[in-house]
Amino acid sequence: MLSENEIQFRVRYQETDAQGRVHHANYVTYFEMGRTELLRSQGLSYRQLEEEGFYLVVAGLEIKYFSGAKYDDLLRLVTRTLRLKGATVEHQYEVYCGEGLIVQGKSRLGCVDKDGKVQRLPKLLGGGGTEGNG
Amino acid sequence: MLSENEIQFRVRYQETDAQGRVHHANYVTYFEMGRTELLRSQGLSYRQLEEEGFYLVVAGLEIKYFSGAKYDDLLRLVTRTLRLKGATVEHQYEVYCGEGLIVQGKSRLGCVDKDGKVQRLPKLLGGGGTEGNG
Amino acid sequence: MLSENEIQFRVRYQETDAQGRVHHANYVTYFEMGRTELLRSQGLSYRQLEEEGFYLVVAGLEIKYFSGAKYDDLLRLVTRTLRLKGATVEHQYEVYCGEGLIVQGKSRLGCVDKDGKVQRLPKLLGGGGTEGNG
Amino acid sequence: MLSENEIQFRVRYQETDAQGRVHHANYVTYFEMGRTELLRSQGLSYRQLEEEGFYLVVAGLEIKYFSGAKYDDLLRLVTRTLRLKGATVEHQYEVYCGEGLIVQGKSRLGCVDKDGKVQRLPKLLGGGGTEGNG
Repeated sequence: MLSENEIQFRVRYQETDAQGRVHHANYVTYFEMGRTELLRSQGLSYRQLEEEGFYLVVAGLEIKYFSGAKYDDLLRLVTRTLRLKGATVEHQYEVYCGEGLIVQGKSRLGCVDKDGKVQRLPKLLGGGGTEGNG
Repeated sequence: MLSENEIQFRVRYQETDAQGRVHHANYVTYFEMGRTELLRSQGLSYRQLEEEGFYLVVAGLEIKYFSGAKYDDLLRLVTRTLRLKGATVEHQYEVYCGEGLIVQGKSRLGCVDKDGKVQRLPKLLGGGGTEGNG
Repeated sequence: MLSENEIQFRVRYQETDAQGRVHHANYVTYFEMGRTELLRSQGLSYRQLEEEGFYLVVAGLEIKYFSGAKYDDLLRLVTRTLRLKGATVEHQYEVYCGEGLIVQGKSRLGCVDKDGKVQRLPKLLGGGGTEGNG
Repeated sequence: MLSENEIQFRVRYQETDAQGRVHHANYVTYFEMGRTELLRSQGLSYRQLEEEGFYLVVAGLEIKYFSGAKYDDLLRLVTRTLRLKGATVEHQYEVYCGEGLIVQGKSRLGCVDKDGKVQRLPKLLGGGGTEGNG
């Protein structure tokens, strides 16, 4: 299930720092919101995945920061699934403020069970099984 | 076990906001750090309490802000147990920057079990039982 | 300008803690979002207020927690202006998860200038001046 | 001024998430703490650098997550300056829990002035000038 989704949200005051811009750690949280909504746009729910015993944990992250965002800026985040294979899923992220691309990211997530043991991605995500609907 | 404890810590850049001061929500987190260290100073561990099935959840909070703190300021937090009764424990907090009292708070925590059901504070915290060592 | 506003938003994964619920400090941030959107619903912008030299700083906060919220819960926050006088504005907050009221809060904010000196609320907020449009 | 520094700190409850581990965004904040203390160990103060008009902004970040940390775990963070050149400084980070390396990171920071214009790193950081004391 390779696809993309876009969300919009406003910068919270709490997310700014003394330089007057969004603190760079918050983009990591934005990316996570993007993944949640990408799944929802596919009719899936990450919350339900966890309830069924599939936990996605972040294994790697790369971020490039080109510019900053200010309090109350309306940001657009495009989230794309790059690759799904075995127990791993890769996403790409682009954050726009107006027309400008301000931050770009990539993540690699692994699928584990409740005890942290690696397991194949659930079929409904496009993982493993031949009858997967990805 | 009524007592008090003091900790010191530096303001993190991430904790500041665009006004150039610690965002007011962070004091709630500071208070929580104070409770952890107050317990540790009593030879207890909140982590262990949870592992034994005692969860403390915040039921009420009051905070007064007198002044702000900046990045890298060295803050002092005094945490005091005000009252322990049944399933409830109340704490008081004072945050100092240099000699100045900048924030003051109070919290009320309730003790619940894994399923969220109210239960008496564990004896080693001074709760309930007559043989409590509090 | 006494009024109220309602916003809806989803709990982010990052906002949960090891108890599996929204960490209690995050409601402070939610309240701030409520204030931003209350102003916007009145045709005002807190960002613009700051650009014009009016800074609102939190002087007091009271929160009661009745229940918790989980990741991906859709929360409703009702923000009300309780009182506007001189340099002070008081708000009330109610957070609902489904039909249940889970958290209630109150805040007192003071208006200061760029140097932290107390000043009357701007007229467009209902402060001070007789020609205020509040 | 190429060097390294180590700090220790405890995981705050607020930093955990519903998976019971430190939320992955917090390591970005830990890295920032590491940079602050690396400078301090060199007799410098990032706060003072900003007061003198040198702002460091994060341009790139790479993180690998090998394992998680729990509330109250005592973490060790080793921060190293990898490279200083022109307006750019690169750092490397290793987070240990006990003996285990749990997270590894790299960052690239750019030096800008108050208006966001790129400028050479200050000499006392080892930047630019031949008379730099780095």
